[in-house]
Amino acid sequence: MPDHRSHIDGARVLGDLNALRGIGAYKTGVHKPTFSEPHMRSLRWLAQRLPEAGLSAEIDGIGNVLGTSARSGAKLLAGSHLESQNYAGWLDGPLGVVYALEAARVINADPDVNGSVEVAAWCDEEGHFGSFLGSRSYVGALTEEDIDAARDRSSGRTMRDALREVGLAGRPRVSAEPGRHIGYLEAHIEQGQVLESDGLAIGVVTSIVGIWQYRITFEGEQNHAGTTRMNVRRDAGLALARFCVAIDDRFPALCGPRTVWTTGRIVLEPGAPSIIPGRAEMLFQMRDDDPDVIDRLEALLREMAAEASRGRCSVAVERIRTGAPALMNAAFQQAIEAASATFAGGRSVRLPSGAGHDAQVLATIMPAGMLFVPSRGGISHHWNENTADADIITGAEVFVDACRRLLAG
Amino acid sequence: MPDHRSHIDGARVLGDLNALRGIGAYKTGVHKPTFSEPHMRSLRWLAQRLPEAGLSAEIDGIGNVLGTSARSGAKLLAGSHLESQNYAGWLDGPLGVVYALEAARVINADPDVNGSVEVAAWCDEEGHFGSFLGSRSYVGALTEEDIDAARDRSSGRTMRDALREVGLAGRPRVSAEPGRHIGYLEAHIEQGQVLESDGLAIGVVTSIVGIWQYRITFEGEQNHAGTTRMNVRRDAGLALARFCVAIDDRFPALCGPRTVWTTGRIVLEPGAPSIIPGRAEMLFQMRDDDPDVIDRLEALLREMAAEASRGRCSVAVERIRTGAPALMNAAFQQAIEAASATFAGGRSVRLPSGAGHDAQVLATIMPAGMLFVPSRGGISHHWNENTADADIITGAEVFVDACRRLLAG
Repeated sequence: MPDHRSHIDGARVLGDLNALRGIGAYKTGVHKPTFSEPHMRSLRWLAQRLPEAGLSAEIDGIGNVLGTSARSGAKLLAGSHLESQNYAGWLDGPLGVVYALEAARVINADPDVNGSVEVAAWCDEEGHFGSFLGSRSYVGALTEEDIDAARDRSSGRTMRDALREVGLAGRPRVSAEPGRHIGYLEAHIEQGQVLESDGLAIGVVTSIVGIWQYRITFEGEQNHAGTTRMNVRRDAGLALARFCVAIDDRFPALCGPRTVWTTGRIVLEPGAPSIIPGRAEMLFQMRDDDPDVIDRLEALLREMAAEASRGRCSVAVERIRTGAPALMNAAFQQAIEAASATFAGGRSVRLPSGAGHDAQVLATIMPAGMLFVPSRGGISHHWNENTADADIITGAEVFVDACRRLLAG
Repeated sequence: MPDHRSHIDGARVLGDLNALRGIGAYKTGVHKPTFSEPHMRSLRWLAQRLPEAGLSAEIDGIGNVLGTSARSGAKLLAGSHLESQNYAGWLDGPLGVVYALEAARVINADPDVNGSVEVAAWCDEEGHFGSFLGSRSYVGALTEEDIDAARDRSSGRTMRDALREVGLAGRPRVSAEPGRHIGYLEAHIEQGQVLESDGLAIGVVTSIVGIWQYRITFEGEQNHAGTTRMNVRRDAGLALARFCVAIDDRFPALCGPRTVWTTGRIVLEPGAPSIIPGRAEMLFQMRDDDPDVIDRLEALLREMAAEASRGRCSVAVERIRTGAPALMNAAFQQAIEAASATFAGGRSVRLPSGAGHDAQVLATIMPAGMLFVPSRGGISHHWNENTADADIITGAEVFVDACRRLLAG
């Protein structure tokens, strides 16, 4: 058994994950929206642990936690996020942060390593206020105007108000120092069933699919639900329902083998039982690692909207997020695979990520890699999300060994 | 020209209506949800005016405003409501209250009348917290437990909390005194286009249709919108959209000539763009003056739910409100028609009300009648709702004359 295996403290990893689960606990998961009290408490929890790993800690003006090393030699950046979706799972985010913390504790104290692991928790990966605001801030892709415009998608609270309320307003935002890092490594639960179905322990991520998002708006005529005859109604909610069904009927003929699409949110206005909706809006998302597939689906979407607009309600399709698939670095994939051969009996597979991750943002300025651990039943974004303790520990071993290999260069 | 015509002060009626529009103004309409600050200010505005009409004013423990006369002789109760739907019209409610106030001012000071008009503004006709809570309280059809259970449909705030915050908690609720009134008269905007299309000034309401309401719930499986393949999804939102379309396709074959149905509210849970909805809910409403029609439509709805439940998501249909059509009193209809002959050149028509009104609740304990004035373009429950000033004044003349005729017996 290789010597560095013993450096990992599995109980410490599980203890840390459970400590984070205890902050903002909900059933067997957590409820930690961005800038909520339990989210902020989780950030401070991490900042207090970073010195144990030889890192000086900072929470910056966008809510990123950054642990910086004064050690000489190569530096690898590692991390994930600490906020959660609403009423969601305990590992989505914290797993990658705790692996990074463990790697820093093990490696930064190791006299045989000429380098260090630096730790990051990126704010708002889950998109309560926007899209990867924390990691985009770090790579220099977030303006002050972007922050001015950001609002909590549930409450409508502005990000500026939220930053003020949690005491972060006015703090500087930390940006990446060019050339400081050899790259970025992130671990995450798979959120799918490939690893579990095939009895595997590690997913070596090859690419992260792009996410294209649309606001589709239906304009009809708001009126009284009792006095307006059926034949003169212009019901925006009904137009929306017909559009959803048409997407489901027509997309399969044009999509790719891995394309997915989702209507996650619908709002009827004004939303009262006795009022015919005059306006309706849906948030629609498509994901693929092939932009050509998305191009033809978007063209279909716009054609369908034009067809529908010839009926009783007008339909407008607005693209509000443009995806770009992110390729993971080849050397990072090799390092994870080699670590899996040593610590997971080679039970690994290369696969794309259907979910978005901060690694895709970091990949725009430095080499990046990701590894997945299995998700029980593939359940994700739900408090039932879980991973076996043994799989969590195997994942930590592979993660730390991959860090060593990358720092050894 | 009859003598009593001159007793009506059209400028005063328009002035009062515009004063109420100025409280909680929104564009050309108002935004006065039940127990909001502008709603409470409107109640106090009315209470301050009632003494001008020889009435002593009271705001009771459910938020009803009641103006009581000490005069001898017959008593006619008249009124409507002062809260509004969200961002809605200026006349929906206030028209009937101001007509009642004007009738009281004119008639209660008239030495030739042996009787008086008493004025009511019923709380929450618009159903922010429930269904006709104010008028049901007055007729004795609202228990303390009903109030305990009532919540604001938008914010979830309990009615008890709201009553406490506006200072009404602990006040007694005023109930109808048996035999006190010869009946109840209410005026309202038509909220449809019958009067406008036919160049008429007055609608004589024959009945108020029943409203049946349903909560239809779809249960699927919440999961990640990026990692869950299309073929294993159980998307509750998509199941809901298919159900809405199926209603629209299948109802016309079984409905009656005046049946209307509406899905006014849809909620997907958890409602985030990157999460497949695991649960979805719609509020569905049907209206008709023939319960047999509703019976066969409800049977169809339940059959459709059973069919849909054999697919990927389960569908549950729960009836949450049961309608009962209310007949308007024949003598009241005759009085309104006679007044229309004198003051509106006979430009009246008898018609049912597709909208619910407090008159249907009052009709359970006393004779009741309603008259409509035209709505421009039939627009209702929207800030664009409006009625020509001349139609408002004609309506007031007919209303006050109908009150005189009813009091004269």
